[in-house]
Amino acid sequence: MEIDLSKPILDLNERLAAENRAELDRRGVFVVDMMASPGAGKTSTILATIAALRDRYRIAVIEGDIASKVDAEKVKAHGIPAVQINTGGACHLESDMIKRALDALPLDELDLIIVENVGNLVCPTDFYLGENAKVMILSVPEGHDKPLKYPGIFQVSEAVILNKIDTMPVFDFDEGEFTSVVRSLNPTAPIFRIAATKGEGVDAWANWLAARIDALKASIAEKQAGEGS
Amino acid sequence: MEIDLSKPILDLNERLAAENRAELDRRGVFVVDMMASPGAGKTSTILATIAALRDRYRIAVIEGDIASKVDAEKVKAHGIPAVQINTGGACHLESDMIKRALDALPLDELDLIIVENVGNLVCPTDFYLGENAKVMILSVPEGHDKPLKYPGIFQVSEAVILNKIDTMPVFDFDEGEFTSVVRSLNPTAPIFRIAATKGEGVDAWANWLAARIDALKASIAEKQAGEGS
Repeated sequence: MEIDLSKPILDLNERLAAENRAELDRRGVFVVDMMASPGAGKTSTILATIAALRDRYRIAVIEGDIASKVDAEKVKAHGIPAVQINTGGACHLESDMIKRALDALPLDELDLIIVENVGNLVCPTDFYLGENAKVMILSVPEGHDKPLKYPGIFQVSEAVILNKIDTMPVFDFDEGEFTSVVRSLNPTAPIFRIAATKGEGVDAWANWLAARIDALKASIAEKQAGEGS
Repeated sequence: MEIDLSKPILDLNERLAAENRAELDRRGVFVVDMMASPGAGKTSTILATIAALRDRYRIAVIEGDIASKVDAEKVKAHGIPAVQINTGGACHLESDMIKRALDALPLDELDLIIVENVGNLVCPTDFYLGENAKVMILSVPEGHDKPLKYPGIFQVSEAVILNKIDTMPVFDFDEGEFTSVVRSLNPTAPIFRIAATKGEGVDAWANWLAARIDALKASIAEKQAGEGS
């Protein structure tokens, strides 16, 4: 006999994630879940994304960390609503945490919520939060062999951001090898090369995200028009 | 009523870890568990440690990764026995995995086993493997705010290695702030500043580890002499 203790927890997570998604669809809010190692530049990438998109969309951020509120404070300093989740030890966000964060945000006044997951290349992969897309960031200093060692996160991501490309000369990063292994794991995800703190390459990534947001809004509008007729 | 599903798993892990420790004590083998984010330079630090200590001790390595065997191959290329554990998704090593790896190593011919845990600043913290010391590596590109965000790993580590210090000029790393937060979390752990790929600063760290190995060997010899008299 086998008892899979992880199954009921995952089922509950999935159910609450679907509730999050339904609520967000009603309000037309797109959610992107940003995953990366500690220090890969999640917060910097989020700030650069906000700078690129804040004229087009109303944005909020949900920050996930084991402890501290430094990231939410950084975001609020740019005049963007932010909710800090402290997991108190848990290595990833779950959908009940997102549910509580959504309750604290003015959903009717938002187009985009950017979720910064806990810094971890493993655990966030398995948990659906109700987001529209998972996106991962790898930074050049981490090394080109990471897709080989952490294949799961590269497989579930709909876009891959390669950050800190300005430090390429300092590190022995084989970009051809990196791209080739990412492609074998995930043939369709675009790879965006950026230097978040310098704003380099951010537009291509921001435009991809904008196209996804617009597509969601169009599909919701179409559905609502269908229900109305 | 509360059911704590994590308790029995942790208990089993602790029991097997104690068995590992007893077996290793009988053979006089010191084990250090190296923890860090993906790409912080665990393998480079281990290779630099081997270079510094291989004339004094007989060394083997246990490599933990979600997937791939690239790290064990790197170590073996230096003529050091290495066992690769692929966790197949698990975000940390557990003591049963170490037990199986120990079975594959010539324990009577070893003084030191270096365990490279899965790249993760969260999950490895909670799992005792039977090691004599947990040590963590943070790399400069990850940023000085990591102790605030991942306090647990800084608290359980008996030494903290700050790696890639040669890249300090490229990154905005506030070393005073870093040291001050580490000190508040862990007043006693030494902080070793190294650049593993260049061999810089490795001697101080290697000498600390050597002192710990010698102390273990002395305490085991004393205990065995006591039992023999």
